[in-house]
Amino acid sequence: VSLLFRKSVIAGVGLLGASIALAARRARVVEEIVGYGRSEPSLRLALKRRMIDRYFLAPGEFPEDADLLIVATPVEAIVPTVRSFRARLDSRCIITDVGSVKGRVVRQMENFLGEGIAFVGAHPIAGSEQWGPEFADADLFVERCCILTPTKKTDAKALHKMACFWRKLGANVESMNPSVHDRLLAVVSHLPHMAAYGLVNTLSRSRVDALDLKAYCAGGFKDITRIASSRPELWRDICLANRDALVSSLNKYIRHLDQLKTWIARGEAKQLEREFTRANEVRRQI
Amino acid sequence: VSLLFRKSVIAGVGLLGASIALAARRARVVEEIVGYGRSEPSLRLALKRRMIDRYFLAPGEFPEDADLLIVATPVEAIVPTVRSFRARLDSRCIITDVGSVKGRVVRQMENFLGEGIAFVGAHPIAGSEQWGPEFADADLFVERCCILTPTKKTDAKALHKMACFWRKLGANVESMNPSVHDRLLAVVSHLPHMAAYGLVNTLSRSRVDALDLKAYCAGGFKDITRIASSRPELWRDICLANRDALVSSLNKYIRHLDQLKTWIARGEAKQLEREFTRANEVRRQI
Repeated sequence: VSLLFRKSVIAGVGLLGASIALAARRARVVEEIVGYGRSEPSLRLALKRRMIDRYFLAPGEFPEDADLLIVATPVEAIVPTVRSFRARLDSRCIITDVGSVKGRVVRQMENFLGEGIAFVGAHPIAGSEQWGPEFADADLFVERCCILTPTKKTDAKALHKMACFWRKLGANVESMNPSVHDRLLAVVSHLPHMAAYGLVNTLSRSRVDALDLKAYCAGGFKDITRIASSRPELWRDICLANRDALVSSLNKYIRHLDQLKTWIARGEAKQLEREFTRANEVRRQI
Repeated sequence: VSLLFRKSVIAGVGLLGASIALAARRARVVEEIVGYGRSEPSLRLALKRRMIDRYFLAPGEFPEDADLLIVATPVEAIVPTVRSFRARLDSRCIITDVGSVKGRVVRQMENFLGEGIAFVGAHPIAGSEQWGPEFADADLFVERCCILTPTKKTDAKALHKMACFWRKLGANVESMNPSVHDRLLAVVSHLPHMAAYGLVNTLSRSRVDALDLKAYCAGGFKDITRIASSRPELWRDICLANRDALVSSLNKYIRHLDQLKTWIARGEAKQLEREFTRANEVRRQI
């Protein structure tokens, strides 16, 4: 028997929320899926495509018999969303999220939920620069890493159940401390986004004669800046929620670029070649 | 009649040199193609695949009746290569190159060639992070931009002939001053490469617990750092040849990242969102 939950609420039916719905339905781990969100067109589309069975728009209509609440909203909306359902949450309902930053969310959630309701922080490392349920994909989590971030307060049974849930969706499940997660993501995901945004805006602010620089961007520039078309509000929130770790990895990156710049200015050929060769080797292992 | 040249020497039969050979043959703009290079296996492969008609290894065997010399070596080898052929160059032979940096090369070439032999600097903005004639592609230049960099000293007929040559290979030909070219490329190509090398090496020097950070790099990181697998010696040379323009665009980029960092540290939500939205819009136009 693969059924893990009877009634699941997915709050925020965007790319991730709708993909979870598709994948969970295919894996038959949930009986009923109820959508919630602020954008009725998205909910209607998800209903029409049978991703969800029904939806509601007022927090007061949260189904009291739900045994799983997946919050798939942008990071800053996670805690307020759960707070708005608080009065109708059953003690058997497991709450989880899919936010890209964990430390602050997990701390706030545990503080205000207290004992009795289980929260399991989760972050499936999957997505794309597209957004909205129309891009949902039942295979989005297959062979991708899903990081769970339990703390001492996390209910062991709920943690186990969520690990099963993500495995059934095809993900490779790992557990780590929320702050370790945040430092990890600052390096492998949040920093590259800043690098890409920075590149695009450096380009847009550079002047070379009266040329339209955009017209000369070949494959390399396009690849490297594709993620700069990610959703602005989402990345604004990620930056603010993971402030400390991101500032620290930006510092490392800036120091690194400064070093490269010095080598170039001084014509240090050997240092440059060593540095580029090193990057080559690391890149090959990724 | 499309024939433009009788006997062309391609010095450096790597990805670019071999692609030019394939494309020129298909367009029937050259009668005979003679290869030259330091790697005999590459030349043998090019011969076997009929990209070239024959090859030579000693500069002293340069065919005196060649009417086109295309130097497709790494940037630092362009001038020394032409110098090694100097004694056998006919005054009717047009010399051109495909280097990614133009200012220094054009200056040096014009200085040592003097009057009588025409040099036309060229840079087809095409390529890939792969190298070697085995990846050659007759379509490499189709619909891509090829920048010619004439100066006051450039022979007008030779310039016209090379513009025709590149158009027959499918490229969109533009002309600009060598130093404008270098400042342009510093922003749209050389800087992104530095950004990618820097990201990969920042990752490789970061420690988060005992995690293998490489294992957590998702699509975004892979895309953005793909160009960091470009050939190290080639990029070392490009950095040194375009030192001033690259240092200046690195400075701009670093200042930009510093600004982002400050906004993040101070929690300036509006500034961040504005900045990311701006990048979004620019990215869409690329």
